[in-house]
Amino acid sequence: MHNLQPTAALLIIGNEILSGRTQDANLNYLAKTLGKLGVRLVECRVVSDNENAIIEAVQSLSGRNDYVFTSGGIGPTHDDITTATIAKAFGKKLLRHPEAEARLRKHYKPEDINAARLKMADIPEGAELIDNPVSAAPGFILENVYVMAGVPRIMQAMLDGVSARIKGGAVTLSRTISATVTEGYIAAELTAIQEANPNVEIGSYPFIRDGKLGVSLVCRSTDVAALDKVAQELRALISKHNAQILEDN
Amino acid sequence: MHNLQPTAALLIIGNEILSGRTQDANLNYLAKTLGKLGVRLVECRVVSDNENAIIEAVQSLSGRNDYVFTSGGIGPTHDDITTATIAKAFGKKLLRHPEAEARLRKHYKPEDINAARLKMADIPEGAELIDNPVSAAPGFILENVYVMAGVPRIMQAMLDGVSARIKGGAVTLSRTISATVTEGYIAAELTAIQEANPNVEIGSYPFIRDGKLGVSLVCRSTDVAALDKVAQELRALISKHNAQILEDN
Repeated sequence: MHNLQPTAALLIIGNEILSGRTQDANLNYLAKTLGKLGVRLVECRVVSDNENAIIEAVQSLSGRNDYVFTSGGIGPTHDDITTATIAKAFGKKLLRHPEAEARLRKHYKPEDINAARLKMADIPEGAELIDNPVSAAPGFILENVYVMAGVPRIMQAMLDGVSARIKGGAVTLSRTISATVTEGYIAAELTAIQEANPNVEIGSYPFIRDGKLGVSLVCRSTDVAALDKVAQELRALISKHNAQILEDN
Repeated sequence: MHNLQPTAALLIIGNEILSGRTQDANLNYLAKTLGKLGVRLVECRVVSDNENAIIEAVQSLSGRNDYVFTSGGIGPTHDDITTATIAKAFGKKLLRHPEAEARLRKHYKPEDINAARLKMADIPEGAELIDNPVSAAPGFILENVYVMAGVPRIMQAMLDGVSARIKGGAVTLSRTISATVTEGYIAAELTAIQEANPNVEIGSYPFIRDGKLGVSLVCRSTDVAALDKVAQELRALISKHNAQILEDN
């Protein structure tokens, strides 16, 4: 059902995520944004600020996806190695980008411009800039890789700015029906519904609410008629098991 | 500095994370838990409920890390393919595990036991069970792979239960100093401090608070004296730039 959708991967770069200091928020935002664009996010990796780890991941993800997005490591400090490393991964030189430099010089007072800040104007040869409306220092697009900041507010602004140029396919629609039934009761019938409706992807997600197990059944498809048919079958299944529907949207 | 620490990777399995429906919480919990145990989390991957994707990821991560943890996909429904797929990845048979079956039969009323629920007692040959104090269905350990549930409360209970058997090295300690200075001002001096103190990893993380940029400087090391020395140098650096320390711990 997803044949017509381009695929994407996210590479999150940063020790702070792997140490537990910072809770990532970029995966979820990217996933929702790509969903609306008809692009299927198929993989995410989180790696540390380590050159070999970044190179291996970006080459692997770039080779097998239509789009790769990265977040983190494009600032002015010693631990910001993403830009230089992405350049290296693609065999590109790092060059001072005149437009990027102009943006930084416009953003900062002359006395606040220094070598560390100008490092953020060093961009791989042939890359296109991604606007940063929050703090000027741009991201960039190199081949199919979109390199963005890690700070969620900046990452989101960058992604929103480039989203018009991301070409998606049919948009995946979803229906979620949550009910007061544990999934073990309905699993066999759910399998039968899934098998009879191969163009709808049915996910079954247990949850605990007020100490009791329930389940959210999530149907996803680019075919709205098929989706509505499955949603109707799921409502009937829940009703048959004398469970209460808590959410249906 | 981390030579004495075993490494770990996390594999998150689930379409719901990649579609944006669910915000992952397991990476952060695992990262913090492993940190306390002296194990270094070096990589995380998120893949969909797809057999090939799971096999490729678990084989790759298992081969190069001391520990692999997985979360998600061990329930009773059609989209729970983790257990069978991990068995396949390691060339193991899936067998009904008597102790796992006994736990399920104790947890459920006899009339609630069905084939779907008993599927959760099918465990790869030679695997050891991981207790599930929340909903009985166990996880398991196969070779260096710890297979756990995706629901955060269950995943956390499983991890807490096995943490005593995870052998860590020296514990990484950290100091965080946050200040009202943007990292571009201090980047060059920060690089010098990092270079002079190779056994302390210094991370520089910008943040936006009340519309203003600030920075959190995070030092991590297994050597407490080295850590305290660097923290003192960072305080002096911030003071030199007439910035205010917002957090020091």
